[in-house]
Amino acid sequence: MTFRLFIVGLGPGAEGQVTQEAREALAQATDLLGYGLYVTRAVVFGAADQAVPHVTDNREELGRARHALELAMQGRVPVVVSGGDAGVFGMASAVFEAVAEGPEAWRAIDIRVIPGVTAVLATAARLGAPLGGDFCVISLSDNLKPWDVVVRRLRLAAEAGLVIALYNPRSLARPGQLDLGLAALRDVLPGEIPVVFARAIGRPTEHVLSTTLSQARGESADMSTLVLIGCAHTKQIERPGQIPWLYTLRRVP
Amino acid sequence: MTFRLFIVGLGPGAEGQVTQEAREALAQATDLLGYGLYVTRAVVFGAADQAVPHVTDNREELGRARHALELAMQGRVPVVVSGGDAGVFGMASAVFEAVAEGPEAWRAIDIRVIPGVTAVLATAARLGAPLGGDFCVISLSDNLKPWDVVVRRLRLAAEAGLVIALYNPRSLARPGQLDLGLAALRDVLPGEIPVVFARAIGRPTEHVLSTTLSQARGESADMSTLVLIGCAHTKQIERPGQIPWLYTLRRVP
Repeated sequence: MTFRLFIVGLGPGAEGQVTQEAREALAQATDLLGYGLYVTRAVVFGAADQAVPHVTDNREELGRARHALELAMQGRVPVVVSGGDAGVFGMASAVFEAVAEGPEAWRAIDIRVIPGVTAVLATAARLGAPLGGDFCVISLSDNLKPWDVVVRRLRLAAEAGLVIALYNPRSLARPGQLDLGLAALRDVLPGEIPVVFARAIGRPTEHVLSTTLSQARGESADMSTLVLIGCAHTKQIERPGQIPWLYTLRRVP
Repeated sequence: MTFRLFIVGLGPGAEGQVTQEAREALAQATDLLGYGLYVTRAVVFGAADQAVPHVTDNREELGRARHALELAMQGRVPVVVSGGDAGVFGMASAVFEAVAEGPEAWRAIDIRVIPGVTAVLATAARLGAPLGGDFCVISLSDNLKPWDVVVRRLRLAAEAGLVIALYNPRSLARPGQLDLGLAALRDVLPGEIPVVFARAIGRPTEHVLSTTLSQARGESADMSTLVLIGCAHTKQIERPGQIPWLYTLRRVP
């Protein structure tokens, strides 16, 4: 018997940004596991009618992963869902961590990770081409890593001249960290570097704020915002009546 | 009159990894502009039958971008296509560079960038969850930036503890640079760090080589390979008869 488990990235939220592969996995689900918002989205995006929803909080990722692996061993077809791409601060890592720590039998499960459009790609596309050069993706949360590691990574990334995408920039429990991170970046980068706060890209509640590093304030972000920090080669194109286009030169002079 | 232009990411190559949005843009095309492989793929993925193909070499990106903008100004609906995501070492940056340098009228064109699944996401999904933590995406090509910038970025990214995805790792014109880049990384990272060479992920010619930093050799890559270099928290899970799963711990101890 083949035991199967899917880990599916649902994309940024708009139905048109889901891949066909993701839809096909959802259509096979007997169980859907994830954060409430993503389980709801999975149903909208075509999960099988009989799929049993298992909604858990975002802090319970390892328990959710183990539950999915147990369901797979019972011959069910659990689908673990994440927003964006499940491999980028989503559920994929938690599932493999659970496998590594779990019973040997779990290694025989046919685990398929279905990639998706992660937030930084959708945000960049909406703005123009700010990822035109090298870039990095950093979570600002210190739930899982020490804060001094976060700051060190920001500084080194800025010194390297990488465009920086910040996931999880701010939460109620961490209201001040984004300002500290921006201050660390100001030590390395000039104040006129473009900074964008992008929320709910591609959805009806979309909001984009374009500013500069010197003027950026943490209060412009919440947990659902992606913060994009340009590099020395990130340029703006002004347009009448629209947010400016942002792009990073492919060429480093 | 609205002038329109689409820039579309076609995903890694498998038809199931294309988004619905990308298909809808292709279906509206009067003209397809891109590298031959991607124009062919765009036709397979549902480009309008009457779309005129304009195939150009990868070294002619700015000229291709200007051509697309001129077609848009003629009232046609040009679709510029890239593999993966057009914003990640694809055509998006070239189009906006052409807009910035071009006539003012081009700023009125409704340019839509349709995001796609870029190679590093598809590769990570195939391997497990190697992007479980912070990561960066760096092009190893020095066609557009000095080689010392490339090496400096690699060293700083490794010092930061980021997982590193290398695009364009090797070409006929640059046969030795990947070995130089790997040598620079060995100065910073321990030799047992996992390294993966992944080619044509999700396609029939898929090839994956899992090794370590100390044993990695540039000759294992070509221009179509993505090279993924783990960090200190990237782990392997051995499986009978299969390539090992690779994942990066979400937690930095």
